[in-house]
Amino acid sequence: MSNRKNGQWRLKTRPVGMVKTTDFEFVTEPVPDLKANEFLVRNLYFSFEPAMRGWLNDVESYVPPVQVNEVMRAFTVGQVIESDSADFSPGDFVQGMLGWQEYVTCGGPPGVSKLSEGIPPHLALSVLGGTGLTAYFGLLDIGKPKQGDVVVVSGAAGATGSVAGQIAKIKGASKVVGIAGGAEKCVWLTDELGFDAAIDYKTENVEDRLATLCPEGINIFFDNVGGSILDDALTNMAMHGRVVLCGAISGYNDEDLPPGPKNYTQLIVQRGRMEGFIVFDYMHKASEAMQDLSAWLSEGRIKHTEDIQEGIENAPVTFLRLFQGKNKGKQLLKIADAPI
Amino acid sequence: MSNRKNGQWRLKTRPVGMVKTTDFEFVTEPVPDLKANEFLVRNLYFSFEPAMRGWLNDVESYVPPVQVNEVMRAFTVGQVIESDSADFSPGDFVQGMLGWQEYVTCGGPPGVSKLSEGIPPHLALSVLGGTGLTAYFGLLDIGKPKQGDVVVVSGAAGATGSVAGQIAKIKGASKVVGIAGGAEKCVWLTDELGFDAAIDYKTENVEDRLATLCPEGINIFFDNVGGSILDDALTNMAMHGRVVLCGAISGYNDEDLPPGPKNYTQLIVQRGRMEGFIVFDYMHKASEAMQDLSAWLSEGRIKHTEDIQEGIENAPVTFLRLFQGKNKGKQLLKIADAPI
Repeated sequence: MSNRKNGQWRLKTRPVGMVKTTDFEFVTEPVPDLKANEFLVRNLYFSFEPAMRGWLNDVESYVPPVQVNEVMRAFTVGQVIESDSADFSPGDFVQGMLGWQEYVTCGGPPGVSKLSEGIPPHLALSVLGGTGLTAYFGLLDIGKPKQGDVVVVSGAAGATGSVAGQIAKIKGASKVVGIAGGAEKCVWLTDELGFDAAIDYKTENVEDRLATLCPEGINIFFDNVGGSILDDALTNMAMHGRVVLCGAISGYNDEDLPPGPKNYTQLIVQRGRMEGFIVFDYMHKASEAMQDLSAWLSEGRIKHTEDIQEGIENAPVTFLRLFQGKNKGKQLLKIADAPI
Repeated sequence: MSNRKNGQWRLKTRPVGMVKTTDFEFVTEPVPDLKANEFLVRNLYFSFEPAMRGWLNDVESYVPPVQVNEVMRAFTVGQVIESDSADFSPGDFVQGMLGWQEYVTCGGPPGVSKLSEGIPPHLALSVLGGTGLTAYFGLLDIGKPKQGDVVVVSGAAGATGSVAGQIAKIKGASKVVGIAGGAEKCVWLTDELGFDAAIDYKTENVEDRLATLCPEGINIFFDNVGGSILDDALTNMAMHGRVVLCGAISGYNDEDLPPGPKNYTQLIVQRGRMEGFIVFDYMHKASEAMQDLSAWLSEGRIKHTEDIQEGIENAPVTFLRLFQGKNKGKQLLKIADAPI
């Protein structure tokens, strides 16, 4: 055994309704010695996504549920600090589903991969990682934008929504409207990110504002939120409109399934399409997407922000920020500086 | 003025909740003399579709609402009995949106067209008309069936559903399951139409039965019903499954919009698609579809039935049969024998 202690957040009890910090438990265990071909990673950043709430429910989904007493599952970026592997060397930055813990012993792919040369670790978890890819493939492969489209994004000040809206502009949308909570986020969308308009769902009537802002209807609705906002958008869809189902954060913490979109029959009236996707399915096309995203980022055509909290002790409370609408841009937690 | 009297059913009051026979009023007016290029049609059959209930609501939709005091809108088949038109001759059978009335004066297309040679008038309103085309384009263009698919149809004993299920078999579905109300309809689906199984939603747990009958999940759900049955199907979709939104009869008579499909997020988990359509959009491709439908019909690969009531006085009560689940196959009302 090494002398290193591995601090970990484990799932203590399955959350019922709104997830609580007390649903997790902090434990410490020794870091085991490396076996042949293994390497040891020091986690540097944890990534937080609303979908992680779904992983805590005991239901079959696109990934198995996190089990009680398991380390909380999460995407992270870390640095290799010891290695008996021919492929991973101390100093390498890596990413993977390495969980809420300080150290993790890895055997190599699948599950962990090296960061591309020159990508800052925190960007590998946001715009140049799964978040950017989710926005990219959701908007382009599911939304199939056409020149001149009117695009509306919910959760627009979140990590995925903010990028999806900017990609829509790059792809020739005539108007991009973001829906977000609070004046500060709305100003950020219009003044910093180039959205044409923003709707503050906390103080405005979303259905009416969409009708005013999109008099010819919505061609693409990129939905991260669900609930009443999805209904408001469905009411305002244009002919042959597309609803990209990326997430439904408004209902993730409900004890029972919340009501569905009662206006879904607008999909008949308007010959519309509502389609879901999971970014994992697109990993074989990730490199082309990363080329686009990197180029747009370096050209200043995509702006981004991260909300970076600090300290592993704050993992559960940082997770809750997503559901409290506190984050602007990508929610991250910094665990350590790169040791090498 | 001719001596002919035109009996008409007009919308008297907009229905609130379940449509009632007293929402319509029977009036008689003289048939006006023909003007230049006009022709006079004697209606022979009225066609009844659940979607007609939506035309009675004062909301913008894919067609304008029927106005109070207007003749009730309906597809009909009739025969030309007088003509000053170069294109339409006495004896010609025609179809169009000619309404719940005995006679109608027409100016020609659009709105009225001749029946193809040899098509019996009642089939032009069912399997060889809009109903058959709805099943055809909904299943093929929206559902995009693949060899071996598991296909489930709701409202399966209705005019559209019964044809959609049979087309699915023709196109290589490995299993076609119909959902219908009552044992007699279910037996008809399996014993007469070749469905592999049928679920009686009035006596069986649809979600559980679908899980048993479709252990690998549903590839295509052709939905005429909506409501809880749509949720039951969403719970059981296969990866990349498609929901064809054809109708939602379960909610057409609700005063307020009924709850939406709370399981719609299964479209994310299963990367599914839910898409609506209106058959009117496919009229430019109708002739190819009619060739297929006619061939399948003559080869005995599609079986059909019509529920033919009689007498114009029964138009409203025949309309209500749709919402009482009384019809098996296409609901028609015979108004007159062909006079010529």
